[in-house]
Amino acid sequence: MRILFVGDVFGSAGRRIVREHLGHVVEQHEVDLLIINGENAAGGFGLTPAIADELFELGAHVITTGNHVWDKREIIEYMKSVPEDSHENPRRVIRPANYVAGTPGYGFYQGQLPSGQEYAVINLQGRVFLGSSDDPFRTADALLKQITAKVILIDFHAEATSEKAALGWYLDGRVTAVLGTHTHVPTADDRVLPGGTAYQTDVGMSGPYDSIIGVEKELVLQRFLTGMPGKFEAAKGDPRMAATLIECDGATGRASRTQRFLLGE
Amino acid sequence: MRILFVGDVFGSAGRRIVREHLGHVVEQHEVDLLIINGENAAGGFGLTPAIADELFELGAHVITTGNHVWDKREIIEYMKSVPEDSHENPRRVIRPANYVAGTPGYGFYQGQLPSGQEYAVINLQGRVFLGSSDDPFRTADALLKQITAKVILIDFHAEATSEKAALGWYLDGRVTAVLGTHTHVPTADDRVLPGGTAYQTDVGMSGPYDSIIGVEKELVLQRFLTGMPGKFEAAKGDPRMAATLIECDGATGRASRTQRFLLGE
Amino acid sequence: MRILFVGDVFGSAGRRIVREHLGHVVEQHEVDLLIINGENAAGGFGLTPAIADELFELGAHVITTGNHVWDKREIIEYMKSVPEDSHENPRRVIRPANYVAGTPGYGFYQGQLPSGQEYAVINLQGRVFLGSSDDPFRTADALLKQITAKVILIDFHAEATSEKAALGWYLDGRVTAVLGTHTHVPTADDRVLPGGTAYQTDVGMSGPYDSIIGVEKELVLQRFLTGMPGKFEAAKGDPRMAATLIECDGATGRASRTQRFLLGE
Amino acid sequence: MRILFVGDVFGSAGRRIVREHLGHVVEQHEVDLLIINGENAAGGFGLTPAIADELFELGAHVITTGNHVWDKREIIEYMKSVPEDSHENPRRVIRPANYVAGTPGYGFYQGQLPSGQEYAVINLQGRVFLGSSDDPFRTADALLKQITAKVILIDFHAEATSEKAALGWYLDGRVTAVLGTHTHVPTADDRVLPGGTAYQTDVGMSGPYDSIIGVEKELVLQRFLTGMPGKFEAAKGDPRMAATLIECDGATGRASRTQRFLLGE
Ligand SMILES: [Fe+2]
Ligand SMILES: [Fe+2]
Ligand SMILES: [Fe+2]
Ligand SMILES: [Fe+2]
Ligand SMILES: [Fe+2]
Ligand SMILES: [Fe+2]
Ligand SMILES: [Fe+2]
Ligand SMILES: [Fe+2]
Repeated sequence: MRILFVGDVFGSAGRRIVREHLGHVVEQHEVDLLIINGENAAGGFGLTPAIADELFELGAHVITTGNHVWDKREIIEYMKSVPEDSHENPRRVIRPANYVAGTPGYGFYQGQLPSGQEYAVINLQGRVFLGSSDDPFRTADALLKQITAKVILIDFHAEATSEKAALGWYLDGRVTAVLGTHTHVPTADDRVLPGGTAYQTDVGMSGPYDSIIGVEKELVLQRFLTGMPGKFEAAKGDPRMAATLIECDGATGRASRTQRFLLGE
Repeated sequence: MRILFVGDVFGSAGRRIVREHLGHVVEQHEVDLLIINGENAAGGFGLTPAIADELFELGAHVITTGNHVWDKREIIEYMKSVPEDSHENPRRVIRPANYVAGTPGYGFYQGQLPSGQEYAVINLQGRVFLGSSDDPFRTADALLKQITAKVILIDFHAEATSEKAALGWYLDGRVTAVLGTHTHVPTADDRVLPGGTAYQTDVGMSGPYDSIIGVEKELVLQRFLTGMPGKFEAAKGDPRMAATLIECDGATGRASRTQRFLLGE
Repeated sequence: MRILFVGDVFGSAGRRIVREHLGHVVEQHEVDLLIINGENAAGGFGLTPAIADELFELGAHVITTGNHVWDKREIIEYMKSVPEDSHENPRRVIRPANYVAGTPGYGFYQGQLPSGQEYAVINLQGRVFLGSSDDPFRTADALLKQITAKVILIDFHAEATSEKAALGWYLDGRVTAVLGTHTHVPTADDRVLPGGTAYQTDVGMSGPYDSIIGVEKELVLQRFLTGMPGKFEAAKGDPRMAATLIECDGATGRASRTQRFLLGE
Repeated sequence: MRILFVGDVFGSAGRRIVREHLGHVVEQHEVDLLIINGENAAGGFGLTPAIADELFELGAHVITTGNHVWDKREIIEYMKSVPEDSHENPRRVIRPANYVAGTPGYGFYQGQLPSGQEYAVINLQGRVFLGSSDDPFRTADALLKQITAKVILIDFHAEATSEKAALGWYLDGRVTAVLGTHTHVPTADDRVLPGGTAYQTDVGMSGPYDSIIGVEKELVLQRFLTGMPGKFEAAKGDPRMAATLIECDGATGRASRTQRFLLGE
């Protein structure tokens, strides 16, 4: 079985490059399960229901997010519009599971592919350099007790490499993959840990690489150079799709292979 | 002309794997200039004069460091033992140039290869998530005014991907390379920016990859899981050398190509 | 009923000044319940069993702590040496209740005064600028469900004024007092909130005020000025005891009055 | 000679309570020099030229600011509208002096009272928990070299008590006063250090104390409890003016006495 995870889609340039490449990658690599991190899909900040639907139309089974999830407020009602046991689109957009109890939306999704193959996707957020949330390690433990699927992918949206590696090792042998997001830079350390869990510190951004992590570089530079406030705008140039393919055994959930993509125009 | 930059050497496992690979990489790729980040070379924390000399014997022209530079106190006297215009080993161990004026040691080194080719190496440290230091952008500007070499490599020891990318773009066309260190994870974004500056967010650690960024993984995991204090020890397993090769024009300093290495046993 | 809370006792100078003043303050103000924050009592970093016993001999009913609690390792076994339902000294040394489940020791203590008056003391730690722990707001909610005493004092060990004020208002009317610790500087905002909860952002340090928050000022200054590492040592000069007195109704737990002390030699 | 420093004026409630009390305090205590921190005067976030002028009409000689200085963009042009040697109102609104070179506005102001008494006011910003800026210690050193006035007051806008105390001791005997701002909570540690410098960790906010550091408490609490975004609005209830009076020798600049005010309706 093959899972493709597409890293943080950033703005219209990101959506465009993903649209351009997704079809042939999915077809060529016989991808069964497609997961997209969409936290920056709407102009770089958050995602709207319309943009979520756009990503579902591209074939996404589940959309994960991160700290930018609420940047566009419409997504709140969208995510609240379905009950927990729904399988409709709004239920398939998830936010970090270790947000405080009562947060709108859900932190994981369990579904079934047409083949009958069960799978689950969990979204977690780190705490080092990234605001307060519940313990991602304990939240993972708790969720794994209720999840019955063998194939389980975790999008760990976090800043610090130490925290990401720690979660990977902590869950090695218990989930199919721990893939990092948030830094917007793909790391070259994708591999299968000894217990059978695929791991990568960060999948990287699917968006404009002629930028500073997605934003127009002059705007970010001005911020660093002057300390003066200023609006950030999504860049457009040099779009690339960053994604990672995981091959695993559908019966056991054990990963056997990872492959990185960074596809430009 | 070819420059090889070896990422943060971590502990004895890191030194061993570097010793194993450096010779053939240098020979095969006809490396002219060799730079090694040694901030974790001594048991994962700092470096000693003896270990610095060990890295020089492997062929390093310059050793860069970062926030762990003072972890072993002996290095302070070593770095202070030479005048600024020296070219002896202690002068070739540098610390971030944007540390406060009066800090022991020097923040850049300018030298000459046997061929007569001049080069300079600058070490800078980021400020996002990483303690206070002087402005790395302005420090770079100031140093570039005094440096006469055309070939200039910068080791930017920093945490945040945004700050690293910002410095890369800021110096594009003005230096040969801006290579990141500190996160201990190699990134897959090495490339030559349009102005001719080679850029990579992080070269990655040369050390034990069966670890959490170099440290025994059980020790780091315990820290994350319990919050209790505990001694960190360098791991040994799965050593790999992370390095990046830059091809550039010695006359202009413009980079033309980058190549990543992650070499295991 | 009167409660006296003594702020972070710092080193031997702090212990000495507390010993000097505590007796007459307790006697003159007819203090019924005495609580001391002891996280810095042993040389400025942590506390030992012997020093805890020393504070109990001065009349403390409960000793609270904070982020420095484990600096002296002996305290771990001491706090683990008693079962949860004990009332012996080691059970009366508490650590922040929102540390991860399984942490040695206990996060609150409920006891009875000779008069039969019941009371409880809760220790919590903030999360803004201060490392990861469980949600202090939700932890307080959960503990208040199990506590039967009406008189409840909370030592909120936290950095940010916003988080401290937020907890004070959150618990207003539900506890007798929310007193802040950790910054080592007494604040002049002690008062009774409308719901009957005494509040003060920080009680301040009981220790040497000829210092930088307790530490020899030259050592801290050198750190700020040079960025170089160096050992911190407890200062001795100008010791003062910082404490806050709360008057409350023992039957309802409502506070009626606060009074600040900053007593020197 | 007497100096009155009024802490961060917060929103309309802050402006109103200051207007109510300033006249009689200035008169009763024969205040010669009046300095107001205005970084939150406009609805809690920044200040406008009109509001700056309003504070000058109340008698302010100098308005200091801090990290919120640019929240209202109009202030940028206002501060740039005068040359460095001007003494007009826009020149008397200062921003932290350790912002990067080239930042709009000025970081200190030197003026003369009608009596002929010279004075200077310096604004600095801390770096611990508060974003990157130049070294406040070195910036102070540099400014003190150019300032000829003997009476010098520093508004140190900073978060950490350690950094504030460190600057106080560093400048003891070299300036008349180091007064902290930014935390919005007055501290009870105002005093004259041995060298003759008045010091207080934080003067506190002049604004609504029925709030969480000035903001409507329900809004801040929701943020802490849910992590969801939401607009912050200035509170109105329980306004108090927080100010500190410094008595000093105009000829030497040495302080002899401090007095705290926290005046409500
Ligand atoms: Fe993102
Ligand atoms: Fe993110
Ligand atoms: Fe390192
Ligand atoms: Fe480092
Ligand atoms: Fe403390
Ligand atoms: Fe503390
Ligand atoms: Fe303020
Ligand atoms: Fe501020």
